[in-house]
Amino acid sequence: MTSCSRGPSARSSAVEPFRAMAFMAEANRLRADGCNVLSLAVGQPASPAPQAARDAAHAMIRQGRIAYTDAMGRIDLRRAIAGHYRHAYGVEIEPSRVMITSGASGGFNIAFLAAFEAGDNIALASPGYPAYRNIMRALGIVPVEIEVGPSDAYILTRDHLEAAFERAPFKGLLIASPANPTGTMTPPAEMTRIAAFCRETGVRLISDEIYHRLSFGVEERSALQDLDEAIILNSFSKYYCMTGWRIGWMVLPADLVKAAERLGQNIYISAPELSQVAGLAALGASDELDRVRDSYLPKRRMMMDRLPAIGFQAIAPIDGAFYAYAQVPQGFHSATAFAEALLAQCHVALTPGLDFDPARGDGFVRLSYAGDETEIAEALDRIAGFVVRHG
Amino acid sequence: MTSCSRGPSARSSAVEPFRAMAFMAEANRLRADGCNVLSLAVGQPASPAPQAARDAAHAMIRQGRIAYTDAMGRIDLRRAIAGHYRHAYGVEIEPSRVMITSGASGGFNIAFLAAFEAGDNIALASPGYPAYRNIMRALGIVPVEIEVGPSDAYILTRDHLEAAFERAPFKGLLIASPANPTGTMTPPAEMTRIAAFCRETGVRLISDEIYHRLSFGVEERSALQDLDEAIILNSFSKYYCMTGWRIGWMVLPADLVKAAERLGQNIYISAPELSQVAGLAALGASDELDRVRDSYLPKRRMMMDRLPAIGFQAIAPIDGAFYAYAQVPQGFHSATAFAEALLAQCHVALTPGLDFDPARGDGFVRLSYAGDETEIAEALDRIAGFVVRHG
Repeated sequence: MTSCSRGPSARSSAVEPFRAMAFMAEANRLRADGCNVLSLAVGQPASPAPQAARDAAHAMIRQGRIAYTDAMGRIDLRRAIAGHYRHAYGVEIEPSRVMITSGASGGFNIAFLAAFEAGDNIALASPGYPAYRNIMRALGIVPVEIEVGPSDAYILTRDHLEAAFERAPFKGLLIASPANPTGTMTPPAEMTRIAAFCRETGVRLISDEIYHRLSFGVEERSALQDLDEAIILNSFSKYYCMTGWRIGWMVLPADLVKAAERLGQNIYISAPELSQVAGLAALGASDELDRVRDSYLPKRRMMMDRLPAIGFQAIAPIDGAFYAYAQVPQGFHSATAFAEALLAQCHVALTPGLDFDPARGDGFVRLSYAGDETEIAEALDRIAGFVVRHG
Repeated sequence: MTSCSRGPSARSSAVEPFRAMAFMAEANRLRADGCNVLSLAVGQPASPAPQAARDAAHAMIRQGRIAYTDAMGRIDLRRAIAGHYRHAYGVEIEPSRVMITSGASGGFNIAFLAAFEAGDNIALASPGYPAYRNIMRALGIVPVEIEVGPSDAYILTRDHLEAAFERAPFKGLLIASPANPTGTMTPPAEMTRIAAFCRETGVRLISDEIYHRLSFGVEERSALQDLDEAIILNSFSKYYCMTGWRIGWMVLPADLVKAAERLGQNIYISAPELSQVAGLAALGASDELDRVRDSYLPKRRMMMDRLPAIGFQAIAPIDGAFYAYAQVPQGFHSATAFAEALLAQCHVALTPGLDFDPARGDGFVRLSYAGDETEIAEALDRIAGFVVRHG
């Protein structure tokens, strides 16, 4: 007689915890205990969804039933997103290639399953968003991490890719610009060179464009402008301030549409309908959302000014998204211990770098400046005091 | 130089389309063309979410930001669900074992990844919900389909399992009661025998209880009452009338909680927060929801009376859920052709049985009676006319 409790699968054990989420959970527990916790741990705007989105949601709840949609999403939203690519990037795509997803997370899950076998490998930059490699591992895909750092301004280039491909060819390439956690952006000409590399080698390009419309001075380029066969991931979570609504989209190459639709039908049924309706309204709320984006400027400036003064080092260029990625001040060895002590003693949550870079990340932390400006200032004060006391 | 378009993965090609969704998409296209389409294709209540849920959602949208939650879900909702198990089944569980998911679909994805390796096999009844085997295949799990039918009232029993296990042992067992598409329920004593089989063999039990609280005369028993190590799936979609909100839950055995949390953090981040808040309110709306459930009684009666009169055969017991599963009338050979012609000519959508039973399903259709009573009556009139004209 064997036991019914066989424990978790090996593939789930290959998935590391997303430490930002663990820190958020711990911060929530401290808050429930009455602590005044300030969080720079999660990439989440302080602003609510735009008024038009909230109005659309109100109206839909009043009108009645919120139902399953087609697995690909509501056609009005898919058409509007196709229009966005025409308007913002000058790219014509059929609405049939747009799939509405349960956040960009849902998009990655479907994209990886649709385009890659278990055992395939996908190249990506390190540091990078941890869920990339964690979802890959859960699905049997091997992440090939290519290190970037201060010497190359944290930017993955065609030169990196050629060198890595020569060592060991890969089937896919995942790029993100603006990038999480570094906030760096791939220059448009480099994006074009990377797309050409993918065309020449047959490598499937996946471009995470979730931080588009949150850039400060560097031109944004969609991978679709260079490569019609790229898989584009995007979401309403960041620029559109709709994290908890769990709504995003993909632009798929024509040869993957049917596979993605079948996966969506079975694994998701559909994305939340209320969020789809709200997202459609949010697409038309650029005035309000551009004001939110502009509100990041003084917070970004605060990070650029104060982090070096506090003693943070090797700070990545803060060109887009709403993150600073920096080496902890001298005198601290483990960034995880730094972050744990900071949360326990000063009630400031930030994310240790091991989330983003398993090899070198324990010297680094990510600080999100998506939150409230006053709270960020107060959090930086607390961090400065902590560094003085313990550094 | 190879092409960048390498086509979909083999594993995604192993996923069959969910035909109910394809029929819904075609029905939506016909509706957009101005046709009066009546749909019995999708298991979706005609009633909206209960008033308390809609009020809670309104209040939350007004209050402000809708945000990521802990990957396991909001603690208030997890506590309330633990309370539901105490109240409804007399079972004590820690709220830490409750995980809020993006519909039951999200729960299955996480449960399969957390507990099973690629190459593992899971037994389940056929006919059955197609997403079970499709998600399994996408994740490299081998479904072992055990046929049930009119001779055993479509009920999977311990005897079936012992015979199948002797032929080829399996690692997991998935049961559903009330079942989709048949509406049959496992008698409580049989549920206890199945749980004992799992305990004795070490087979991991997954119990889909999404149609609980929608049963008509047969006692509902949660697998948790017999086996603390079972994985329980449930959702707010059916009894709670919240399909499009994409919100469900799992009760996990203690040894899988951490693995499921890590998977959730990475693949979902969290379930939609607005839906979590609305779901909490829906848990307290039993009076309104019991009235909705009672409204299924005359529609169920209509199915039981009219389907045999129209000529449908081998009708499964309609003990729970809101489906009838029946063999198409004599004179029709392919149920898929039957359903396609019915939709094209009479604008009535139902689901061909191949969704549920790849081996024998082409003789069967599933008819959902979750919709509006007048529309169901009209749909049955149209079906009767179609059968007379073409049978």
